[in-house]
Amino acid sequence: MLYAVTMDVAIPHDLDPEVAASTIATEKAYSQELQRSGEWRHIWRIAGQYSNLSIFDVESNERLHEILWGLPLFKYMTVKVQPLATHPSDIALLGGADGGGQASQAG
Amino acid sequence: MLYAVTMDVAIPHDLDPEVAASTIATEKAYSQELQRSGEWRHIWRIAGQYSNLSIFDVESNERLHEILWGLPLFKYMTVKVQPLATHPSDIALLGGADGGGQASQAG
Amino acid sequence: MLYAVTMDVAIPHDLDPEVAASTIATEKAYSQELQRSGEWRHIWRIAGQYSNLSIFDVESNERLHEILWGLPLFKYMTVKVQPLATHPSDIALLGGADGGGQASQAG
Amino acid sequence: MLYAVTMDVAIPHDLDPEVAASTIATEKAYSQELQRSGEWRHIWRIAGQYSNLSIFDVESNERLHEILWGLPLFKYMTVKVQPLATHPSDIALLGGADGGGQASQAG
Amino acid sequence: MLYAVTMDVAIPHDLDPEVAASTIATEKAYSQELQRSGEWRHIWRIAGQYSNLSIFDVESNERLHEILWGLPLFKYMTVKVQPLATHPSDIALLGGADGGGQASQAG
Amino acid sequence: MLYAVTMDVAIPHDLDPEVAASTIATEKAYSQELQRSGEWRHIWRIAGQYSNLSIFDVESNERLHEILWGLPLFKYMTVKVQPLATHPSDIALLGGADGGGQASQAG
Amino acid sequence: MLYAVTMDVAIPHDLDPEVAASTIATEKAYSQELQRSGEWRHIWRIAGQYSNLSIFDVESNERLHEILWGLPLFKYMTVKVQPLATHPSDIALLGGADGGGQASQAG
Amino acid sequence: MLYAVTMDVAIPHDLDPEVAASTIATEKAYSQELQRSGEWRHIWRIAGQYSNLSIFDVESNERLHEILWGLPLFKYMTVKVQPLATHPSDIALLGGADGGGQASQAG
Amino acid sequence: MLYAVTMDVAIPHDLDPEVAASTIATEKAYSQELQRSGEWRHIWRIAGQYSNLSIFDVESNERLHEILWGLPLFKYMTVKVQPLATHPSDIALLGGADGGGQASQAG
Amino acid sequence: MLYAVTMDVAIPHDLDPEVAASTIATEKAYSQELQRSGEWRHIWRIAGQYSNLSIFDVESNERLHEILWGLPLFKYMTVKVQPLATHPSDIALLGGADGGGQASQAG
Repeated sequence: MLYAVTMDVAIPHDLDPEVAASTIATEKAYSQELQRSGEWRHIWRIAGQYSNLSIFDVESNERLHEILWGLPLFKYMTVKVQPLATHPSDIALLGGADGGGQASQAG
Repeated sequence: MLYAVTMDVAIPHDLDPEVAASTIATEKAYSQELQRSGEWRHIWRIAGQYSNLSIFDVESNERLHEILWGLPLFKYMTVKVQPLATHPSDIALLGGADGGGQASQAG
Repeated sequence: MLYAVTMDVAIPHDLDPEVAASTIATEKAYSQELQRSGEWRHIWRIAGQYSNLSIFDVESNERLHEILWGLPLFKYMTVKVQPLATHPSDIALLGGADGGGQASQAG
Repeated sequence: MLYAVTMDVAIPHDLDPEVAASTIATEKAYSQELQRSGEWRHIWRIAGQYSNLSIFDVESNERLHEILWGLPLFKYMTVKVQPLATHPSDIALLGGADGGGQASQAG
Repeated sequence: MLYAVTMDVAIPHDLDPEVAASTIATEKAYSQELQRSGEWRHIWRIAGQYSNLSIFDVESNERLHEILWGLPLFKYMTVKVQPLATHPSDIALLGGADGGGQASQAG
Repeated sequence: MLYAVTMDVAIPHDLDPEVAASTIATEKAYSQELQRSGEWRHIWRIAGQYSNLSIFDVESNERLHEILWGLPLFKYMTVKVQPLATHPSDIALLGGADGGGQASQAG
Repeated sequence: MLYAVTMDVAIPHDLDPEVAASTIATEKAYSQELQRSGEWRHIWRIAGQYSNLSIFDVESNERLHEILWGLPLFKYMTVKVQPLATHPSDIALLGGADGGGQASQAG
Repeated sequence: MLYAVTMDVAIPHDLDPEVAASTIATEKAYSQELQRSGEWRHIWRIAGQYSNLSIFDVESNERLHEILWGLPLFKYMTVKVQPLATHPSDIALLGGADGGGQASQAG
Repeated sequence: MLYAVTMDVAIPHDLDPEVAASTIATEKAYSQELQRSGEWRHIWRIAGQYSNLSIFDVESNERLHEILWGLPLFKYMTVKVQPLATHPSDIALLGGADGGGQASQAG
Repeated sequence: MLYAVTMDVAIPHDLDPEVAASTIATEKAYSQELQRSGEWRHIWRIAGQYSNLSIFDVESNERLHEILWGLPLFKYMTVKVQPLATHPSDIALLGGADGGGQASQAG
């Protein structure tokens, strides 16, 4: 089950630099482990922002929350969650058939 | 080069139903052709909305604009564009090396 | 899996009154069928608004979208979706044990 | 009488960790006592947020304010209150009769 | 039980003038009847706006919704509802006693 | 001359508790003196918020500003001011006559 | 007593051109009459907008509302009202004295 | 050339009181000098706010920026700038002629 | 004197297509004439939007307003104006000297 | 490839003045080097703001992000990025030909 998640990071300017550095290092390892397990499907930097756009593929809302709550930088983030569904225009829906029956949801 | 694009569709309630239906059908074909060519990499429905989140992979801002401007439903859409860059935590950056040198941009 | 959904309804003032009336009647039947099946767990009117706050219990984002997209009044609604998870303070988590181990997520 | 209440929590990053921990523990006990008494009917975590959506069932605006003002984390919260009323499509309104007379408020 | 309600009115410019005029006349009678019954305690025009700020004194959220939903101009209004409680600085709380015990909620 | 004023209070969490307490006590006395003089006609707590909605009856904008600027908690408040006028539906306008001549401003 | 008023005008594109033209002409005469009487002290066009910023000098909130409500274009306007007071840095406050006693309100 | 400028002041609560006081005193002198020179034409307090609305009459955008950037309180201000133009309804445009030729821009 | 202007265009979907086409053609000619005269220095399409970002170089606010007001599409536009000034980091300020004296305004 | 970037700077008032000064000096040098290389095509101060509007001409989203992320003041900035495309009314498109074929995108 897919979710688009946007994370905007704002580390307080008066945070101890060592705490900041170690939190950021832990964040990277945490993210990469979930990418390897397949639950964190995509992560992109939004150009010009200390933000990322990520796609998660998890079994439930519970699991999504567990992952996000556990982010080492969570307390410095503003997070936006959008649950996703299949789009009727997605060519992945097309097998041998033409998919023409779902035109009413295009856009 | 990647871009995240959100399209919110609002078809006027007094639009001629035949015009609406044929525009939606054209939209679907237009999207699928670009998916097949590889420029429209992902399209997801945002659950509960007449909106999609899409990822485009195009050569330039010019080409992105050309594609979006040409959308049959463009005049009924509110479009948001976010240029994307590689995220330093992306495991795709990891080859045989450890990637540890870029921890400073995690999050 | 639970979702909070807010639906704000704005029926165009120049919509044919008969179309409006029959759409509203269909909406009611549609909602009640889903309440009976258990997927539409709660529906409340937000006082002073043509809006409702609803709680859905469905198996996936796909199913949630299917239900909302099918609402007879969907085209006249602004819909907000919030995926929900268990709250660590929820007394439903307390069996014979004391639940004290999860205090860190309270609030 | 029902109210939907959304609480967004933002604990200052420079708050003494012991103060934070004890406040969070007190918050949990406070919430659970009110859940047991029946006034705090539901509490859900909003996935990906340090926020909850709660349903209160209290006798008056006065009582609602007293409860919210007394929350140990109140000073770190942004609170949104929505008074609720019965929705005409709610199947709880249906006894042996068909409830068809209130279709005009559906949606 | 008190509620502050703000009503912003926007009558569509293409509404039949006779329908508009009769709806406005009905609105006035409706409001005045509720003022006489004591439920609509105050109504003020917000200077420079087609808006009013009103104070309602009703027995429940249900009753408040019933009144607002029944407003002849309801479909042309944007309505904001704020449930009210007694303020600890209100001198109405002062009888023979000094009221000093509630200073912590002033402001 | 009437004004509706909303005051949202946000006391910095790191303010000296004694300073906070004494400021709050002074605020209460200041408010009650103006209530007794008749200039601060109403003060209500907005349920669930550290906010109040107040009605002032003063001779001028100058006087209103002088009162608000002098609030002991002013520096911690976000203040919203709305000048008020008589509403044409107000039954206070009705003497022996019917008031029917002002229907055009109802709502 | 002074007020700053911003008026944003949005004439519906499908309004009868003759109605629009005569309303605009009436608006101009209405404004000029009030400028001559001294109540409408300043009117400036906000560059690039169909908007004006005006300063009114009237005896009360009631009179301000009466003027604004009577604007021929009122129904097509979004109006913002800000009551004004004397600024402590205003040199008009300086007579033979130095005015230094009010420095605490500068800014 | 005229500009409307709104300045909202927010002095940090933990700023050294002596620094605050001397900055405010300097601000007042700075403003009064520019009022005397004719560049700062009007300054009004917005009632109930630590804000002013000012009208500047300067030769260029460069000069406006130089003045605002030099404000002693600039670093604590949120500033909004609106360039102004002559309004076609302004009676200052009326000499012996009737000015009727510009009715199309009224409002 | 420079101004950044953003124009968002929203042509009503029910506008006569011939009127729309001829207005758009006139708009293009109007823009190009001003580009040739040097007052409309830059015009860029904002990718994915029916919007442009333009830089104007005109002698005054009056002239800027005259140009914008005269845009054939003005009535269908939302316009945002930002007056510009020289930036202290601009290398155009550097002649033979080093420009180091203005470092305090960088950013 | 062009991008419009707006940077709003907010240096924390309690930042060490020497750190602030050296960061600002580094920012200036960084900007000027990129202006000389041709990637930072324009930089303007937005009048009355600690903000700039800049035009970048870079080869990709990646390069844009690299530049912005490397800004010495980045951590104190709110950045807005808008990818730009050629506007069909741009006279730079006109060679010997008339450019008339693209009128449909004007505005």
